[in-house]
Amino acid sequence: MKLLNVDTSDKVRKKIDESFTDSYDRWEQIPIGQSLGRIAFEDVLSPIELPQFSRSVVDGYAVLSRDTYGAGESMPVFLDVSGHVEMGKAAEGKVSAGEAIYVPTGAMIPEGADAVVMIEYVENLDESTVAVYTPVAPGQGIIQKGDDVELDSKVLSKGEKIKSRDIGVLSALGIEYIKVFKKLRLSVISTGDEIVDSFGEVQYGQIRDINTHLISAMAEESGAEISLKLLVPDDFSKLREAIGQALKMSDIVVLSGGSSVGAKDMTAKAIESIEGGQVFVHGVAVKPGKPTIIGRAGGKALFGLPGHPSSAMVIYKVFVDHLIRKYYYMSEDTVYIQASCGENIHSAPGKETYQPVELIERDGEYEAAPIYGKSAAITTVARSMGYIRISENKEGVKKGEKVRVALF
Amino acid sequence: MKLLNVDTSDKVRKKIDESFTDSYDRWEQIPIGQSLGRIAFEDVLSPIELPQFSRSVVDGYAVLSRDTYGAGESMPVFLDVSGHVEMGKAAEGKVSAGEAIYVPTGAMIPEGADAVVMIEYVENLDESTVAVYTPVAPGQGIIQKGDDVELDSKVLSKGEKIKSRDIGVLSALGIEYIKVFKKLRLSVISTGDEIVDSFGEVQYGQIRDINTHLISAMAEESGAEISLKLLVPDDFSKLREAIGQALKMSDIVVLSGGSSVGAKDMTAKAIESIEGGQVFVHGVAVKPGKPTIIGRAGGKALFGLPGHPSSAMVIYKVFVDHLIRKYYYMSEDTVYIQASCGENIHSAPGKETYQPVELIERDGEYEAAPIYGKSAAITTVARSMGYIRISENKEGVKKGEKVRVALF
Repeated sequence: MKLLNVDTSDKVRKKIDESFTDSYDRWEQIPIGQSLGRIAFEDVLSPIELPQFSRSVVDGYAVLSRDTYGAGESMPVFLDVSGHVEMGKAAEGKVSAGEAIYVPTGAMIPEGADAVVMIEYVENLDESTVAVYTPVAPGQGIIQKGDDVELDSKVLSKGEKIKSRDIGVLSALGIEYIKVFKKLRLSVISTGDEIVDSFGEVQYGQIRDINTHLISAMAEESGAEISLKLLVPDDFSKLREAIGQALKMSDIVVLSGGSSVGAKDMTAKAIESIEGGQVFVHGVAVKPGKPTIIGRAGGKALFGLPGHPSSAMVIYKVFVDHLIRKYYYMSEDTVYIQASCGENIHSAPGKETYQPVELIERDGEYEAAPIYGKSAAITTVARSMGYIRISENKEGVKKGEKVRVALF
Repeated sequence: MKLLNVDTSDKVRKKIDESFTDSYDRWEQIPIGQSLGRIAFEDVLSPIELPQFSRSVVDGYAVLSRDTYGAGESMPVFLDVSGHVEMGKAAEGKVSAGEAIYVPTGAMIPEGADAVVMIEYVENLDESTVAVYTPVAPGQGIIQKGDDVELDSKVLSKGEKIKSRDIGVLSALGIEYIKVFKKLRLSVISTGDEIVDSFGEVQYGQIRDINTHLISAMAEESGAEISLKLLVPDDFSKLREAIGQALKMSDIVVLSGGSSVGAKDMTAKAIESIEGGQVFVHGVAVKPGKPTIIGRAGGKALFGLPGHPSSAMVIYKVFVDHLIRKYYYMSEDTVYIQASCGENIHSAPGKETYQPVELIERDGEYEAAPIYGKSAAITTVARSMGYIRISENKEGVKKGEKVRVALF
């Protein structure tokens, strides 16, 4: 007889971290314009400093600041205009004592000048003379070379998901290509004698496959690509064959099927019958998803999720997405939504509960309404916007209590 | 002399809504497996009811509930076992008074039965007789045909962005293809004598183009596709030609360039010089982005955004993204992050302020830290995770005040 060792979810995540220690190091180099949402494979350091030349941040006259000391409303300083700088052109000439050169906003600061007097404080007396009515301090009106981005400063970290503003930053630095992680390959296998292809004929007693489509889409959101989707009846040799085929084509194999111990035992035995196959998590002390199993074979990961779509979703997020994030060196930082709990939620002490919720906005605040429903109902999946985690040491959550909602 | 009519942002959005009244009705039909993140073109009604047959939600015996009335721990009811239902098969046979048929979880309920007694409350006396130790009410242990999803009930609304769980629902209903909006085509034109291709040679005085890459990536996030990216110097005829070319290939043209009134005037004049071209917003009472202009030509939209990337980002979100959402029939519901303001923010009364912020997590709560920086700095773009809106009637936000952060 086999004892079921039921782990807490923290322990399971630790086991996942310890079991898959080989770093995932497949990368590809792509144009930044195609990199939105991809994961940086390495730190990106700035190859230049920005700005690459000191620029004016106002329309005005580049001057030597010390020439303006003492200038005031009733006592202007007179300077000789020795030229002007054109936008997009190198500044020609040099500002010497007693001189000024006109610079528009964004233009290069000419040599010698250390400040810019805004046009509003200057009066043009003739073509070659200006009266300056205000003193300026060194650096005033100027964004100095390197002020914005220093050479070799980190602008993107390994494991960062590339956002539109990162693409803006990379283009500002002239970086055309970026190394990103190649997408992890994930296979999804749905098991069960009653499960049939979603788009074919359905007989009485049969159920359309949901999980291969649901889990595939979730994996796509995690940044993986789907290498195989399979439906397999509850038959040991067919299951074993499907797992073998999936392992050849993928880094992670996600199985989902009957939540009964019998069905899970078959999945566990099938994994263990593969060369090098080993199951190291057999049951987790979470609700839902107690019968979850996790194994490995030849460095690849296998997950056995509950069959009910709403439970499979939760377990996918809590464990499979965790491994994908680890492989991609992503931080654990999820943006949580702060909400107040819409009603009392009961949970079993000693067992961590992941409660799917709907978010409802009331007067600018979010309320998290728990979603219940008969098991296997698809409408519960449709309404679940996220979930809250209730630790095993809590007996539940009270109505009005502040909760953090992780989004699906 | 031309008076600048400066509108509030609400008024500008209203003008956008009134100016682009033709509905955007280009669609394509795609497999649901490719529909993640796309926008539903029409309401999707369920073509079936779910479950399609009444199913057991427990392992047990299908019975006539009235046969069990009066049963108890010490007074079982004895029933004849007349068969069993296999998973994935139609239930054969019929349950008559005094009979029971075995059903596993998820299997079809046989005719005649109106409840299922859990196996835990039953004792098998011999192959053909069971003792039932508990009464069951009609419907107990059963998810009835149509209980989960009714025929013709709406499972997806026009304008909804398709999420992984929607794909789960569609597959449960056997829906293989879905009509989605064809992506809006958007062109981006960066203007400025000093702006050069991001990946080419840069001379003193020149600045790498940021906005075509930044705005293109943001437009991709909005669900548009980029038909053209152009760089144009501050030259009327070249700008006019570029606008004409962009209009031919796209639904929306986004220009960005110098924030000076002069540069904006050139953009406005170029738009008005196009056949049917008209500028209906010339300046907005917002900070940043006052010189924003909005026009139309032949039913197509043209936006002139500020040249500074951080200002362009804000104005893109506030107006361009607004139009894209309107075209796609998307709701205005954004998921906001609740945060407390990290420091006092001053704003000019009479002018709406969109203040970029960074989100910092402290003890499970978010703090919104305003991002300042010399104009044109790219590091301010890199750090801006979202923005808060300060209405024109407020004088600012106090440190510790609750704010809603819209994410970039």
